[in-house]
Amino acid sequence: MAATELSVSDLQSTLEFTTKLARTAGDLILQGSQAIRSSGNVDEKKNSVDLVTEYDVKVEELVKKELGSKYPNFKFIGEESYAAGSRPPLSDDPTFCVDPIDGTTNFVHGFPHVCISLGLIYKRLPVLGVIYNPFLEQLYYAVKGQGAYLVQGSHEPAKLPLAVPRPLPSLSQALIGIEWGSDRSNDIVQAKGDSFKRLAGNPKEGVVGGRMAHSLRSVGSAALNYSLVAQGGLDIYWPWDVCAGSVIAQEAGCFVAGAHGMPLDNVASEAWLTGRKHFVIRAIGDSETEKGVETQKRLIKEFYETVQDVEAH
Amino acid sequence: MAATELSVSDLQSTLEFTTKLARTAGDLILQGSQAIRSSGNVDEKKNSVDLVTEYDVKVEELVKKELGSKYPNFKFIGEESYAAGSRPPLSDDPTFCVDPIDGTTNFVHGFPHVCISLGLIYKRLPVLGVIYNPFLEQLYYAVKGQGAYLVQGSHEPAKLPLAVPRPLPSLSQALIGIEWGSDRSNDIVQAKGDSFKRLAGNPKEGVVGGRMAHSLRSVGSAALNYSLVAQGGLDIYWPWDVCAGSVIAQEAGCFVAGAHGMPLDNVASEAWLTGRKHFVIRAIGDSETEKGVETQKRLIKEFYETVQDVEAH
Repeated sequence: MAATELSVSDLQSTLEFTTKLARTAGDLILQGSQAIRSSGNVDEKKNSVDLVTEYDVKVEELVKKELGSKYPNFKFIGEESYAAGSRPPLSDDPTFCVDPIDGTTNFVHGFPHVCISLGLIYKRLPVLGVIYNPFLEQLYYAVKGQGAYLVQGSHEPAKLPLAVPRPLPSLSQALIGIEWGSDRSNDIVQAKGDSFKRLAGNPKEGVVGGRMAHSLRSVGSAALNYSLVAQGGLDIYWPWDVCAGSVIAQEAGCFVAGAHGMPLDNVASEAWLTGRKHFVIRAIGDSETEKGVETQKRLIKEFYETVQDVEAH
Repeated sequence: MAATELSVSDLQSTLEFTTKLARTAGDLILQGSQAIRSSGNVDEKKNSVDLVTEYDVKVEELVKKELGSKYPNFKFIGEESYAAGSRPPLSDDPTFCVDPIDGTTNFVHGFPHVCISLGLIYKRLPVLGVIYNPFLEQLYYAVKGQGAYLVQGSHEPAKLPLAVPRPLPSLSQALIGIEWGSDRSNDIVQAKGDSFKRLAGNPKEGVVGGRMAHSLRSVGSAALNYSLVAQGGLDIYWPWDVCAGSVIAQEAGCFVAGAHGMPLDNVASEAWLTGRKHFVIRAIGDSETEKGVETQKRLIKEFYETVQDVEAH
């Protein structure tokens, strides 16, 4: 049987359906967060950080059922298989990849940076991304080749990035998204903590290897970090990837890179297939001597010289 | 001349005026952020981190003029004198304390956690707090003795905290707000970085002194960190204080503490007057063996045993 063919208008109608579905799922996420916080029911697994709840499954089931009913020929990869590294090999078929609740720790605490992330892969490339944060009523979306947008509350869609991209001469001008993650063993915590110190530290005031970034931010959701880089609010986010986020970011002029040592080709599918350690940098205004993409690549190299990349267990 | 006397209804009308003013100032903040990001005009001072712009002054002037016109007998402390540590001695007179743009780095980058923070001190105690983030259309406010509220977008005011406070048995259950700050000299960066490592690290996996907090978050605005603790989204925020934030936090059941070694008396004015290093912890549901306030105090001690408190230069 031939693989399902998708036209531009198919993608447009899929976008309409998935944004509505993301909002419906968002209502369930909000309800779940409120219910869990009111009940005091905080489940723990592994190291008391990576919290999961029944709502993760509930939301995934809702989304899988709705998508399966509307698009019976499309495949589906949920967060469970995604997180476990056991995702099935990709075919050329349209394949939804869904993280039902990105930012689970935030979800449990009511820290308002939680989203559903819903991507569509077609012919092995991410072609559509929808990210919705019901706490702040922020909807991010993109279709490949058609730009990326943010709908905040009841406002009209705003094209990303939200301002004309400025130059970014070095990491010292950057606002960088980082995350402490869920693996808190000594080698990981030391490597990450020391990397963050170098990113923040002033080399002129004694910090060896310091880059003196403008500052470091942590909001606790990979998909929302991608979205923040896409809108231009963060300059860089490292590490972890997200399928929907990579479409939104690339449509907003961002460069998505794989882990340290991988080719700098801005091909999200390749990076997405081969590992979970990724990197995204915003669109950069051309300077007199460099093109935006050249600057993006130069800064990625500078960044990877600064941080120590340790695999989580 | 006798000090101006303020009734409860005076405070209520002051709240109405200041929330409107905060929204007006918020529009100017949004315009300013957009204008600066479009122009590429990123000024730098000190260490390229602590960015200030003409809009900081513009917003403070707008607010000072409006408050001065409406409340000619009230005193005014702006962010400039506040930040410089040269604030005038407090009297019993009503005194506005205003941080026109809290989150200046975010403001310059368009990272959407920026606010105006507007507090009123009366008889040497903070009695009213208004914090408005125009990027996310979030208005936080409180009047002493009347509770704290959040208005998100066009929604109705929601009382803080947003959910019934859960127990918080130890730091290992906490989501903690931290900031890297603007002083990036070696002693500060090492002390902070090592404190963060201990907060995040797992003592069972080799991190000496590790507390294994659920996670660490950084949004880059002291006032919004206070607000996030007040709503229950963060459990703890450290360090830095804010006048308006302390009213909102205390009205939401939070405990505000001074720097390490200061009396644990939850009196914001005292802490506010004597230093800038502060700490706020959310309302905690009573456990079987402890009252909420006792748990708050116990956790503050546990926290100060974990972090290294170095004065910024």
